[in-house]
Amino acid sequence: MRVEIWSDIACPWCYVGKARFEKALEAFPHRDGVEVVHRSFELDPGRAKGEVEPVLAMLSKKYGMSEAQAQAGEENLGAQAAAEGLAYRTRDRDHGNTFDLHRLLHLAKEHGRQDELIQILYRANFAEERSLFTEGDERLVELAVEAGLDADAVRKVLADPTAYADEVRADEREAAELGANGVPFFVLDRKYGVSGAQPAEVFTQALTQAWGNRSPLRLIDQGDAGAEACGPDGCAVPQQG
Amino acid sequence: MRVEIWSDIACPWCYVGKARFEKALEAFPHRDGVEVVHRSFELDPGRAKGEVEPVLAMLSKKYGMSEAQAQAGEENLGAQAAAEGLAYRTRDRDHGNTFDLHRLLHLAKEHGRQDELIQILYRANFAEERSLFTEGDERLVELAVEAGLDADAVRKVLADPTAYADEVRADEREAAELGANGVPFFVLDRKYGVSGAQPAEVFTQALTQAWGNRSPLRLIDQGDAGAEACGPDGCAVPQQG
Repeated sequence: MRVEIWSDIACPWCYVGKARFEKALEAFPHRDGVEVVHRSFELDPGRAKGEVEPVLAMLSKKYGMSEAQAQAGEENLGAQAAAEGLAYRTRDRDHGNTFDLHRLLHLAKEHGRQDELIQILYRANFAEERSLFTEGDERLVELAVEAGLDADAVRKVLADPTAYADEVRADEREAAELGANGVPFFVLDRKYGVSGAQPAEVFTQALTQAWGNRSPLRLIDQGDAGAEACGPDGCAVPQQG
Repeated sequence: MRVEIWSDIACPWCYVGKARFEKALEAFPHRDGVEVVHRSFELDPGRAKGEVEPVLAMLSKKYGMSEAQAQAGEENLGAQAAAEGLAYRTRDRDHGNTFDLHRLLHLAKEHGRQDELIQILYRANFAEERSLFTEGDERLVELAVEAGLDADAVRKVLADPTAYADEVRADEREAAELGANGVPFFVLDRKYGVSGAQPAEVFTQALTQAWGNRSPLRLIDQGDAGAEACGPDGCAVPQQG
């Protein structure tokens, strides 16, 4: 069974929702039969790469609220994170463009290190004092290497803005096609969806339901079993044309 | 809607089956809503990269038949191919390992040129006088460039046997999980399967049935619409913890 999770590193509910999902997955009896794939979704795709600002300033500008009000919202989010055992800095975090992070997550996917990298990026964005957005590419290289990627491969992707760009865009297109207009958005076997950081029990219900409805393929043919195909033992011999 | 086609370049029925599928797809009213993805399946994974032999000798050895009998089988396959408008050399073709071809098809997928490349590889294997297997990597570079890929990127993949190897293996694992033990194997939205080079009418039926049963995701939640999520307009404000 495959669970696809659309998310953005800049999305606090994605950070929290991933932990809630994982709590459900860990207790799921068929967890070894569940493959998790992370998909890209940028909350703020119009933001330029270098355009970094403090989260509180961004929130206050975006919602026309005071920084104190923005701070209160962050404190609430921090409490939700803490309830999942997650560290969350409610002050002095930065907001920035996440396109490069998504491109690196696609590189990591190819090397089977996607889950490692996304967790490290969340931690770097939400829990660490250092900014994820102001220290330049070498900071990302450092984090990606911690996730098990090769430094030169990471530098190459960062230096070429087209690398994995199509994959990011394709994920975003698919999210729209599946009806996701916010994240986190969880899709189980392309049949069931969970929108938002729902409680772990909802994920348990979704996993159970999707697992019970894993459908083997329904084969369509013309009624004869002897299809014209090739297998390890050779190819079917065609009837005389 | 997504159609995944598991196949091998060395598989005559895959070559023929693709043409039959495409005939159905071309006439399908919703063809613009159908995405086609090619997936890897090696018929002869145990064969070493350099181990090339004439198809007729391989068939005769494999089935304990005379080369004349093998030749007759090839003539029949050639007639099936011709009926689909496909050129097919019934003599002097080579058989070889296809792992590198599959790795290149994954590279091509990333650049949106997969369908172009697979068609060119089929043509090179089944219709051209030059061998696909004995001229070394530069022959593959030439064909991949014809499909629109960058020569250096292709050379790099060919020089690194681990590049896209995991993707090929993952495709093969998925084929097994889906119950495919031969190719071509067509999977529509992971719900319907078509095994073998069935007549175009069977593909039409499969496309129609799968299209009619495209299911939007069934959303699972706890009954409240206001999920904890972030969207382009910002994040839901958490209730006081």
